[in-house]
Amino acid sequence: MSQTGAERRAVVLLSGGLDSATVLAIAHRQGYRCHALSMDYGQRHSAELEAARRIASALGAVEHQVIPISLDRFGGSALTDSSIPVPEQAGEGIPVTYVPARNTVFLSIALGWAEVLGARDIFIGVNAVDYSGYPDCRPEFVAAFERLANLATKAGVEGDAFRIHAPLIELTKAQIIGQGSALGVDYALTTSCYQADATGAACGRCDSCRLRAEGFRQAGIADPTRYY
Amino acid sequence: MSQTGAERRAVVLLSGGLDSATVLAIAHRQGYRCHALSMDYGQRHSAELEAARRIASALGAVEHQVIPISLDRFGGSALTDSSIPVPEQAGEGIPVTYVPARNTVFLSIALGWAEVLGARDIFIGVNAVDYSGYPDCRPEFVAAFERLANLATKAGVEGDAFRIHAPLIELTKAQIIGQGSALGVDYALTTSCYQADATGAACGRCDSCRLRAEGFRQAGIADPTRYY
Repeated sequence: MSQTGAERRAVVLLSGGLDSATVLAIAHRQGYRCHALSMDYGQRHSAELEAARRIASALGAVEHQVIPISLDRFGGSALTDSSIPVPEQAGEGIPVTYVPARNTVFLSIALGWAEVLGARDIFIGVNAVDYSGYPDCRPEFVAAFERLANLATKAGVEGDAFRIHAPLIELTKAQIIGQGSALGVDYALTTSCYQADATGAACGRCDSCRLRAEGFRQAGIADPTRYY
Repeated sequence: MSQTGAERRAVVLLSGGLDSATVLAIAHRQGYRCHALSMDYGQRHSAELEAARRIASALGAVEHQVIPISLDRFGGSALTDSSIPVPEQAGEGIPVTYVPARNTVFLSIALGWAEVLGARDIFIGVNAVDYSGYPDCRPEFVAAFERLANLATKAGVEGDAFRIHAPLIELTKAQIIGQGSALGVDYALTTSCYQADATGAACGRCDSCRLRAEGFRQAGIADPTRYY
């Protein structure tokens, strides 16, 4: 049931941010029919999911699913627990914006959908350079998940292997922006801010906003972000 | 934040069936404070979740969470897709009741909750003997998930390792029933049938009913299952 050539399908995890939009553009350019997958996991704001919808449409996804998954029930992260403030300066070690097991959960759900679709390629926009504090953004995590995927599934066991693609993993934010711009990504559609308002406008102060602004500056590309 | 001795916490995946009820009894007997976790994943009937609630309460769980996760959106299994009939005779290979990536998704969510709770022990009732057609019920799958868990998480990376316990993995159904009965599990509370009615009564004809009935017979223990 897997496809080759022009028929290859991929599941692309899409958050609404700059990185995953770039990944969708890369997968599309590589010739995959892209099935975009977003999670409604109790993020503090819905601007991210609105952005994901716009991006999926603008970048040629053949389908976009938003799966509700209540990780906010567990708390433990500034991104899902409103009692933990979002930091405005980078600290030491793993940030409080880390959501426990988030990428493991997202890749697992992507794997289930991929198996049903007959897709064997899953794309994720993790990046080990700018976000090195997150353990589930490292190459060894991605490799371990790929190995698990091929033990966990009917397709994998039958020798029709899954591949987890993390094309941004070794890139700087400036390189990501450069690559996406060359592929025609309109970054005005994306939102990166941890505390964006309902319209998607950004605070300009959180870690994510700082990294993004610095990325545009280093890439020498005009920053289309709207700030509130 | 991890605990030792009398304070140790565990997350126990609880489906409402015979196997996971036995696992909860085992974890409780081992002295863990058990946080039971069930998924509402679009199963065909809600009798399973009702059973899970009764079991969590009867077997001393300190808490029970039911997390909605819409795997039925993807289809692909007789357990979540009403257009695929539940088989009444075991076939060759991987059964159509296989839900793509189900145990990977469930363990990932359990991992996220465990990290927030400070629990380092996760229990799952997978069994490689009676259900050998499911790839995500094998020891190599469980080992690969444990390895992933310790690469994916803040706790794992900091050396406070997670352990995935699958105490039934090498047991026959009769051995599971024998062990649970010795621990006082009331199997009348559990439901195993793939097409149970709203009250939890079983069909007596599907693979799962057959395995269960045969298990009680081989264990020499009276079968409390209600059939419709």
